[in-house]
Amino acid sequence: MSVPYSAGLENVIASETGISYLDVDNEEIVLRGYDLLELAKRRTYLDVVGLLLDGALPTPPQRTAIEEKLKSEYGFPQEVLTMLQMLPINANRMDILRTGISAIASYDLELEDRSHGANYRKAIRLLAKVPQIVANGFRVNARLPLVEPRGDLSYTGNFLYMITGLEPTETEEKIFDQSLVVYSEHEMPNSTFAARVIASTQSDMYGALTGAVASLKGTLHGGANEAVMQMLLEAGSADGVEALMLGKLQRKERIMGFGHRVYMKKADPRALLMKEALAEIAEVRNRAELYEMCVIGEELMRREKGLYPNLDYYAAPVYYLLGIPIELFTPVFLAARTIGVCAHVIEQHENNRLFRPRVLYRGPRNLHPDN
Amino acid sequence: MSVPYSAGLENVIASETGISYLDVDNEEIVLRGYDLLELAKRRTYLDVVGLLLDGALPTPPQRTAIEEKLKSEYGFPQEVLTMLQMLPINANRMDILRTGISAIASYDLELEDRSHGANYRKAIRLLAKVPQIVANGFRVNARLPLVEPRGDLSYTGNFLYMITGLEPTETEEKIFDQSLVVYSEHEMPNSTFAARVIASTQSDMYGALTGAVASLKGTLHGGANEAVMQMLLEAGSADGVEALMLGKLQRKERIMGFGHRVYMKKADPRALLMKEALAEIAEVRNRAELYEMCVIGEELMRREKGLYPNLDYYAAPVYYLLGIPIELFTPVFLAARTIGVCAHVIEQHENNRLFRPRVLYRGPRNLHPDN
Ligand SMILES: CC(C)(COP(=O)(O)OP(=O)(O)OC[C@H]1O[C@@H](n2cnc3c(N)ncnc32)[C@H](O)[C@@H]1OP(=O)(O)O)[C@@H](O)C(=O)NCCC(=O)NCCS
Ligand SMILES: CC(C)(COP(=O)(O)OP(=O)(O)OC[C@H]1O[C@@H](n2cnc3c(N)ncnc32)[C@H](O)[C@@H]1OP(=O)(O)O)[C@@H](O)C(=O)NCCC(=O)NCCS
Repeated sequence: MSVPYSAGLENVIASETGISYLDVDNEEIVLRGYDLLELAKRRTYLDVVGLLLDGALPTPPQRTAIEEKLKSEYGFPQEVLTMLQMLPINANRMDILRTGISAIASYDLELEDRSHGANYRKAIRLLAKVPQIVANGFRVNARLPLVEPRGDLSYTGNFLYMITGLEPTETEEKIFDQSLVVYSEHEMPNSTFAARVIASTQSDMYGALTGAVASLKGTLHGGANEAVMQMLLEAGSADGVEALMLGKLQRKERIMGFGHRVYMKKADPRALLMKEALAEIAEVRNRAELYEMCVIGEELMRREKGLYPNLDYYAAPVYYLLGIPIELFTPVFLAARTIGVCAHVIEQHENNRLFRPRVLYRGPRNLHPDN
Repeated sequence: MSVPYSAGLENVIASETGISYLDVDNEEIVLRGYDLLELAKRRTYLDVVGLLLDGALPTPPQRTAIEEKLKSEYGFPQEVLTMLQMLPINANRMDILRTGISAIASYDLELEDRSHGANYRKAIRLLAKVPQIVANGFRVNARLPLVEPRGDLSYTGNFLYMITGLEPTETEEKIFDQSLVVYSEHEMPNSTFAARVIASTQSDMYGALTGAVASLKGTLHGGANEAVMQMLLEAGSADGVEALMLGKLQRKERIMGFGHRVYMKKADPRALLMKEALAEIAEVRNRAELYEMCVIGEELMRREKGLYPNLDYYAAPVYYLLGIPIELFTPVFLAARTIGVCAHVIEQHENNRLFRPRVLYRGPRNLHPDN
C-alpha cells in the first residue's frame, strides 16, 4: 500500500478508538457517545473519569466509589519530592512534572503488568498522584511550604487547594472542575498520540504519560495556555491587546491560543464554555476588564485572520483568576488530561500493533567512505 | 484528503528526511547517502556522529575535534546521581535512564533554545552524558562503586570501561564500536518517531529523548535484546534452544529478536554484521557454543516461520560476551541511538509541522446524561 505524504499526519488515521471523536461537522466533541460540553455542564470531572475508564457514566454510588479509590491512593513517595527539590531552582515546571512522573513509576509494584486490571489500577494511582506532583513538585522546587492532600475535600477541591493553599469556594471549585472536564480528553492530540506510540512497543503506562508531558510542554500544544496569559499581562489593557496582537500579526508571529488543526476555521466549543466561566469568575473578582480584553482579542483575530480561539485562550485567564500560578497552567492541563491519556494506553495495550511508519528520503545516495 | 487506515501506520509516510532510509529492495540501510554496513566496517562511531550531525563524514582532524568536544562535556551534575540513588533499589534500568535524562534537562542553560546551534550543542552534551547515566545510574542504584569518565580513553572505550569497570582490549573496543554504529540510526523506528512527534510541539530535545527512552523500553522494540539473552541463558545449550523455541512457537508466543516491520521476510543486514562479531568474540572467550546456539535458533526460525533475526538477536550475545550486564543492553542501545534521535529532533525543529493525526471512531453516539 502506498499512501500520499501528509505533513504532520494531517487527516491521517492513526488509530481506531472507542474513546472520543471530534465531529467537526456537527460541532460535537464525542466522549464515549456523550457530548463533552453537555458533560461539562451537567456532570463532574469524576463522572468523566468513570466514563473514560469504565465505558459508562457512573451512578452516584459508583462515582463515590471512584472518589474513595482515588483518595486511598493519595499516599506519595516522599523520596520523589526530595528528588524534585534537588533539581535546579526554577526548573521548568513541566520538566519537574516529567521527571516526577518518570520517577514514581519505579514505586508501582504493578508497573510491568500490561493487563487491563493492572492498567486500570495504575490509571487510578496516576490520577491520585499527578496533581500532587504538579502542586508539591512546584512547591518543593520553589521553596514554598508543602501541602498535604486533604481527604475531606473533593478530588477537584483538593487539587485546587494543594495549588493555592486555600480552600476553594463553591464557585471556584465548580469552575475548576469544568476546566478539568474540558481538558480531560480530546481524541488524538499530539500528547495522546505520543503516549499511544510509546505504549505500542509494550512499554508501560508511566513511560507513555512521561512522553505525553514532554509533548504537552511545547507552545504549539499545552504550553499555549501559559503563553496566552503572558501575552494578556503584557498587553495590560483593552487597547494594549489590539496593539500587541496587530504587532505580532505584522511580524508574522503566531498568536498563542488561536487556531486548531481540526477546527481551524470554526470555534472550539470548549473555548466558548471557558469564556462563560471567565465572565463568571471575572465578575466575582471584579476583573471585568480581563474578560473584555479577551473578547477584543477574539474579535481581532476573527477579523484579521479568520482564526478562532481554542480552549487555551479562555482557560488561561480563568486559571489566572482562580489564583493558579501561570507556570502551573500547563501542568494542570496535563493533570486533567491524565485520564484521557491513560484510557488511550489501556485501549492501545488491549489491541496493540507497533507504530512504525516510513519516510520520504530526501538525502543523497551512493556515497562511499574513501578509506 | 482521506487516507485508508493502516494499523500501526504501516507503510505510512510520517516525515521527509535527509537522515536515513531503509532501502529494502537494494538491502541497504542508507545514512546520509552512505551504506550503514560499509560505515560499520570502515569507519567508527564518532565518524557516524559527525556524519549525522554535520551532514558529511568528518576528516580525521574533524573527528578529533568532535571527540574533544564530547570529552569537554563529560562534567555531570552529581545531584542527578544522588536522585537516581534514591529510586527504589533494582528499579528498571530503562526507567532510571528515563528519569536521569529527564532530570539533566534542567541543568542545560540552552534548554529552551530551538535554534540549530543550540540544538547541536545539546546533542553533543547528551552524547557525553547519556553513557554516564547508563553506567553510573545503574551503579549508584545497584550500590556498586561509581566510575569516573576517563578522558585518556576514546569515547567508545570510555563508555565500555564505565560499564564494566575494566579497560577494554582493542578487540573489545572495536566490536563495541561496531555495535554502536549499527545501533546509531535506523530511519523511523518507534522511538525516533516518538521523539519527532514530541519535538513537533516545539518541545525540547531532552523531552523528546525522554520519550524515546520510554518507547525503546518495550519488548517489541529495544527491550528485545535483553529478552533474547534471557532466552539464550534459559535454553542453556543447542538442544535447549530447539526445545525452547519450538515450545514458544507452539504456544503462539513471539520470539524476541526475530522479525521486523520493514524487512520481515529478509535478513536484517545489521544482524549479519553482529553475527560475525559474535563469532570473533566467542572465539576470544572460548564460548563457541553460544555462537552455535544462536545459529541453530536462526535456522529454526527461518524453517518454521520464515522469520529472520534482527539486530537485537545477535547484539545480545555480543554484549553478554563483552561483559555488559544484561539489564544494560537496552540502555546501551538507547545511548548508541541518541545521536540518531538528536539528528531527527534537529531536523524536525528546522522544518516543523505539528503531528496531529485523526482516528476512526468505533464507539457509541448520541448518548445524553440523564440528570
Ligand atoms: C494549533 C496549531 C499548531 C494548528 O496548526 P496546524 O494545523 O499545524 O496549522 P499550520 O501550523 O500549518 O498553520 C496554518 C496557517 O495558519 C496560520 N496560523 C495558524 N495558527 C495561527 C495562530 N495562532 N496565529 C497566527 N497564525 C496562525 C499559520 O501561520 C499558517 O499560515 P500560512 O499558511 O500562511 O503559513 C496552530 O493553530 C497554532 O500554532 N496555534 C497557536 C498555538 C496554540 O494555541 N496551541 C494550542 C492548540 S489547542
Ligand atoms: C518487530 C515486530 C514488532 C514487527 O512486527 P509487525 O510489523 O508489527 O508485525 P506483526 O506484529 O503484525 O506480526 C505479523 C505476523 O508475524 C508474526 N511474528 C512477527 N514477529 C514474530 C516473532 N518474533 N515471533 C513469532 N511470530 C512473529 C506475528 O505473530 C504475526 O503473525 P499473525 O499474522 O499470524 O498474527 C515483530 O516482528 C516482533 O514482535 N518481533 C519480536 C520483537 C523484536 O525482536 N523486536 C526488535 C525489533 S528490532
